[in-house]
Amino acid sequence: MSEVKVPVWNLWSNKKSYDSCLSSSSNFVPLSENDTRKSENFAGRSTVSPLFDKLPIRSKYMREYKRTSTKRLRSVSRDRGPDCQGDFRVIDWPNESSKIKIRNGYGENSSNTRKSFVVALLLTAVGLLMGFLAAYLDIAVEWLSDLKFGVCIFLLLYTCMGAILVITLAPYAAGSGIPEVKAILNGVVMKGFLSSLTFIVKMLGVSLAVAAGLSAGKEGPYVHLGCCLCALLCSLFPLIRHDGRLYRELLACASAAGVAVAFGAPVGGVLFSLEEVSTYFSSQVLWHAFYCAFVAAMTLKVMNPYYNGKTVIFEIPSNLPWNWFEIVFFALTGAVGGILGTVFIKTNLLWMKLKEKHGYFKRHPMREILLVTLMTCFLFYFSDFLSGSNSEILTSLFNECSDDSQELDDIAKKNEAYLCSVKNSKQVALALLVGTFLKLFTAVITFGIKLPTGIFIPSLTVGGLCGRLIGVLVKGSVTKYPKFPLFRECLLSTSCVSPAIYAVTGAAAMLGGVTRVSVSLVVIMIELTNGLHYLLPVMIAVLVSKWVGDVLHVDSIYELYIKIKRYPYLRSNPPNENSRTEWFSVRNIMHTPVVCITSTSFHLSDLERLLTEYKYWNFPIITSSEENAIIGSVSREAIAFVLGLCHKENLAPRDPRVHFSPPSHLSNLHEAFTVLNDNSSSSEELVLELGSIMDFFTLTIPDNTPVVKVPIILRNCILWLSTCQIGYRDIPKYRSSCRLVIQRRKDFGCHIEKGYHSIYGYDDHFMN
Amino acid sequence: MSEVKVPVWNLWSNKKSYDSCLSSSSNFVPLSENDTRKSENFAGRSTVSPLFDKLPIRSKYMREYKRTSTKRLRSVSRDRGPDCQGDFRVIDWPNESSKIKIRNGYGENSSNTRKSFVVALLLTAVGLLMGFLAAYLDIAVEWLSDLKFGVCIFLLLYTCMGAILVITLAPYAAGSGIPEVKAILNGVVMKGFLSSLTFIVKMLGVSLAVAAGLSAGKEGPYVHLGCCLCALLCSLFPLIRHDGRLYRELLACASAAGVAVAFGAPVGGVLFSLEEVSTYFSSQVLWHAFYCAFVAAMTLKVMNPYYNGKTVIFEIPSNLPWNWFEIVFFALTGAVGGILGTVFIKTNLLWMKLKEKHGYFKRHPMREILLVTLMTCFLFYFSDFLSGSNSEILTSLFNECSDDSQELDDIAKKNEAYLCSVKNSKQVALALLVGTFLKLFTAVITFGIKLPTGIFIPSLTVGGLCGRLIGVLVKGSVTKYPKFPLFRECLLSTSCVSPAIYAVTGAAAMLGGVTRVSVSLVVIMIELTNGLHYLLPVMIAVLVSKWVGDVLHVDSIYELYIKIKRYPYLRSNPPNENSRTEWFSVRNIMHTPVVCITSTSFHLSDLERLLTEYKYWNFPIITSSEENAIIGSVSREAIAFVLGLCHKENLAPRDPRVHFSPPSHLSNLHEAFTVLNDNSSSSEELVLELGSIMDFFTLTIPDNTPVVKVPIILRNCILWLSTCQIGYRDIPKYRSSCRLVIQRRKDFGCHIEKGYHSIYGYDDHFMN
Repeated sequence: MSEVKVPVWNLWSNKKSYDSCLSSSSNFVPLSENDTRKSENFAGRSTVSPLFDKLPIRSKYMREYKRTSTKRLRSVSRDRGPDCQGDFRVIDWPNESSKIKIRNGYGENSSNTRKSFVVALLLTAVGLLMGFLAAYLDIAVEWLSDLKFGVCIFLLLYTCMGAILVITLAPYAAGSGIPEVKAILNGVVMKGFLSSLTFIVKMLGVSLAVAAGLSAGKEGPYVHLGCCLCALLCSLFPLIRHDGRLYRELLACASAAGVAVAFGAPVGGVLFSLEEVSTYFSSQVLWHAFYCAFVAAMTLKVMNPYYNGKTVIFEIPSNLPWNWFEIVFFALTGAVGGILGTVFIKTNLLWMKLKEKHGYFKRHPMREILLVTLMTCFLFYFSDFLSGSNSEILTSLFNECSDDSQELDDIAKKNEAYLCSVKNSKQVALALLVGTFLKLFTAVITFGIKLPTGIFIPSLTVGGLCGRLIGVLVKGSVTKYPKFPLFRECLLSTSCVSPAIYAVTGAAAMLGGVTRVSVSLVVIMIELTNGLHYLLPVMIAVLVSKWVGDVLHVDSIYELYIKIKRYPYLRSNPPNENSRTEWFSVRNIMHTPVVCITSTSFHLSDLERLLTEYKYWNFPIITSSEENAIIGSVSREAIAFVLGLCHKENLAPRDPRVHFSPPSHLSNLHEAFTVLNDNSSSSEELVLELGSIMDFFTLTIPDNTPVVKVPIILRNCILWLSTCQIGYRDIPKYRSSCRLVIQRRKDFGCHIEKGYHSIYGYDDHFMN
Repeated sequence: MSEVKVPVWNLWSNKKSYDSCLSSSSNFVPLSENDTRKSENFAGRSTVSPLFDKLPIRSKYMREYKRTSTKRLRSVSRDRGPDCQGDFRVIDWPNESSKIKIRNGYGENSSNTRKSFVVALLLTAVGLLMGFLAAYLDIAVEWLSDLKFGVCIFLLLYTCMGAILVITLAPYAAGSGIPEVKAILNGVVMKGFLSSLTFIVKMLGVSLAVAAGLSAGKEGPYVHLGCCLCALLCSLFPLIRHDGRLYRELLACASAAGVAVAFGAPVGGVLFSLEEVSTYFSSQVLWHAFYCAFVAAMTLKVMNPYYNGKTVIFEIPSNLPWNWFEIVFFALTGAVGGILGTVFIKTNLLWMKLKEKHGYFKRHPMREILLVTLMTCFLFYFSDFLSGSNSEILTSLFNECSDDSQELDDIAKKNEAYLCSVKNSKQVALALLVGTFLKLFTAVITFGIKLPTGIFIPSLTVGGLCGRLIGVLVKGSVTKYPKFPLFRECLLSTSCVSPAIYAVTGAAAMLGGVTRVSVSLVVIMIELTNGLHYLLPVMIAVLVSKWVGDVLHVDSIYELYIKIKRYPYLRSNPPNENSRTEWFSVRNIMHTPVVCITSTSFHLSDLERLLTEYKYWNFPIITSSEENAIIGSVSREAIAFVLGLCHKENLAPRDPRVHFSPPSHLSNLHEAFTVLNDNSSSSEELVLELGSIMDFFTLTIPDNTPVVKVPIILRNCILWLSTCQIGYRDIPKYRSSCRLVIQRRKDFGCHIEKGYHSIYGYDDHFMN
């Protein structure tokens, strides 16, 4: 009995090819060679769906499958959250949505409107919850800070509690989380980074760390918290959690909401997410992010955590005057901020290297935290001004000296009196100078410990102190030399040179130097100042700071941490200092030979051997070994899945042949694992049709393509093929005509780095 | 005498392959077959450079070359501006910079720093000149408006002058120019669109059209003017003008500067360029654009064209109060704005179709302009309020009724008195309603005539009128029913519901509905209001307007015009309403068979035949007809160039064989056209080594790839291969294993559209 099962769904425009395929498929089954394998009639198995129902199989392939399964295949067996994929894998951007479509079947026009509705719901929920969360954190930090009475022992207690939580429960909660979010939005899969446990630990840890008075902000972690919230909400909707691309777009919106509540800056948050965090940002995402950030900022405003209508603790007064001649000094402040940012990044890297080298703190993270806390406590103990929280210091720095200070509370008043004392301005300048260096030092040793610590506020504080110092110096000069030609403008106006503006510009410049953002920072500062009055000074400072950083060739602190932690992150601009890299071709970094699967002649045992022998994530499928025309590729976990199924169904001993047919015959996955059975000729052979597990969007490029072009394909193109090996086939007579199949992006990243390093001796001794 | 000339430059890491190539190249020269062709000793020609010196050849290939030459090849012969390419071609993004590198030779490390310096210089110059230009235009428009005395005959004179200039000298100066700029930044080449003549005509035409009181703004054309300026400046630097990619990045910066001076909104300008105009926007470009827009806005501020410190004529007062209950009405205003925007787009499209159908106005554009002028003049003649310029109307609309109006000039005072008269508020509402429809009507018939007209200001005016109408109605209701629960908030405050805020939100919503931007519009409005006071109302209105537009499925007016004018623009989101498109594969739209060049067996006469027989822009190069492994591709104009050279050098009669060697042996172009000569065996044959004119970054995908994926490769990937034919090779035994070479993006776009249409009956009867 001859039975050829072909999925019923068929596009009318493909009618012809479909018919011809039917006839051709009867051509290639049965086969003449490989008749030594035993064959068996398997007609009773022609209904396929039971194969997909329950999957509790104990074979080693199923275990491998469980470890590395893609969502597409998991979704068939059982629904899991988005973090159930292989860890540190990279998603397959262009195929994500079609995978969903395959899963859901066709003709479901309602799915799109339902998806839009779910997305709108999620964005609203994330926005609302972020607003509540920010209000809660603001109040919690204030309450904990009030509780500590400035006693060092309380601080130690706080940090210990935070550290225990982080180290024992959720190591991913440490740090600001922005590098990891950046990597996830770049396409990397990180298990557990956005889990509910991480969320709770991060929320508690950040309030403890900030309340302990460490050089740490809660603004950076908001991004991570927002993404956690979004991931938790997404896991409620199967429609979203299986679409890796849409999921990441929603995360980008959530990070915009995070920054929005951090600074009360909805537009700035969207731009920060666009400029720094995201890799791919369509105009659709832009306005989703805008909506989410808007809801979050409004919720926070309505919650009113500070009981004064303000959304952040250190809002800047919006009406200080400045003169045109000061532009020179704003530019100077920008330059100093850029240099300080570079110094921070470089010394933090050095400190990390030192810790890595000695390994003591790596083995005892708790002792490092205690040491940092004690040092912070000790260093700032003797200064009333510096012992306050960073937010209080910023409030004081951003406040102009005035006669009526009834609006300010006690600490601010004291600080203001200190900063504004005209008699001992030299002492104030000295205090600011010392404060700058102490704060920079503590920020350097704090960023990188196992506590949830952001870098926004410490950067702003260092920059603010330094900027205020420049402001005090300029004011002093103007008072001393009023006749100096540059200062002539001052003779006309009543109050001249307010150091507070320099504090604002310095803070912006320092933060720009550390995070290397430009436009979004300016917008955040505008929204903080609640007016466009400082647009020009801030713009000049940020531009100069950015320029200084570009000249000094520094990455942002986030990119540095991505490098240090070796996430498979693909940057848009590979190092391109020497034009010779243009000619370092893909051939030089390829794995050879390419391990391919032929579309009709492989048996199940061959697939099994393939998985055992090679660790690649993906295998190209070619027509035959003579022709080697690529028709698609198949992922490691898809093969593992099929092997597991076959072992369960006891097909493996019979060692059936596997066919990969072109994808136009595909229907949805429930009809995927079609068993073709044929007994037309004398010999009978079992054939499995596996066309449905094939990825049919495979790019090939000649192997003489310059290596530097490949990340352009992979990143800008959002074409991250899920990927495994890079291979080279020596085709007779013409060396360069072989085909490249880019696979396993993580490998590829390493290869590229290696390639560059072998050419340049590129600095990566930290990596090794 | 056997001489094998191989370029001297060689990467040390490729040493091995280089050596083996040397030996292999001696293997494939000479050849056994095709000995019927005459051969000749050509040893004296082994020095190649003279071939590239002067190119005044009269052969038809050189003429074709002149028409379609790429910059890469032109640069060798003579330096020309960036607009000397084939018209409506598409640039080859990934290869642009390597082309420059090939041209300049290697080891030039200084080139990068020199380029940065030139870019900084250009950005500064563009910013400064845009500031001056905006100031000049502001003054010119005011002067011309004062001169006309409100007499219709003057208006006709103005528009006639403008129309004559545009129609006779520079047809590209018509319209706002943003659709074309969008297409150019998408990669399209348009000859003459950014020429100096267009610049001058547009500058004069825009002042005449605006001064004539047409429903036209000068703000949109600023984008085109900025790009013209940038192109003119770029043509001074050979370093920039040959790099199509860098050139487009600078144009994106210039368009940001254009919007920045249009609204005095540097940040908003950058965002508009990012959100609406640009296709590709790296963070590098973001901050270049930011710098350029900053310089432009600052220059305009220093120039002070209105003598009152303002940068735009209709700045919005920043301190009108609003109540929370009004949010409902702001949302309503947003919805109405979105609907009005959709109505504008749809009726404008209908009007265009009507004109196209009858063809009268197409033959007599001058009469259309005169008719539009007369209608505008007549319609608004009897209303003092509406007969003013759009900017004046906006100023009045955005002004709140107050008792002291000494700041306003005469017209504004009269308008304010009119708008604020409490007695006849019904009359005011009626006037606003009539005004909305009249302004909408004139905007619809004006946009699309052969004059430089922007759409920003007319949209703002229509939206402002409509918003003010809603505001008046709300104010009336509050006054009439003060006890209504919703209005309870009003009982406490002294002044309640100011219609000016509704005018602002309505204007933003309408502009959002027409241009479909969100974030940038909010930022522009914030910068216009010089404060964050209206952030919430404007955000709500823009969000609702955007949502309404999304529900009604409208493109922005710019995308509509790109479609109407059939520019080869690739959108990021192809129509995706039905999931079946996923399965409409590339095979269905391919040209078959693929016309290929084999790497070693083609003769010069074969290439000649190829150009004559096929109109493709690009031909893939394969190893041999049996193997068909693709090693690269070669563009039509490169072949034409070589043919021209050969005819000039009298090589054509000898019909030499052509070789395409792998690109690792390439040096710079001056050594490109190496003549290999060989007489080792009995028969002597001339061989031309053409590896240097080959594009070696050629992507191939299987032909069963769904069509909808291909634009993702082409657009998101910035991988626009310069492209020609789409082909299908029937490889025996396996139908789907053929390779696709995507070529000629313009063709491809059409094919895609066709493909979609044949499936959906997609509405394009306007296109045909």
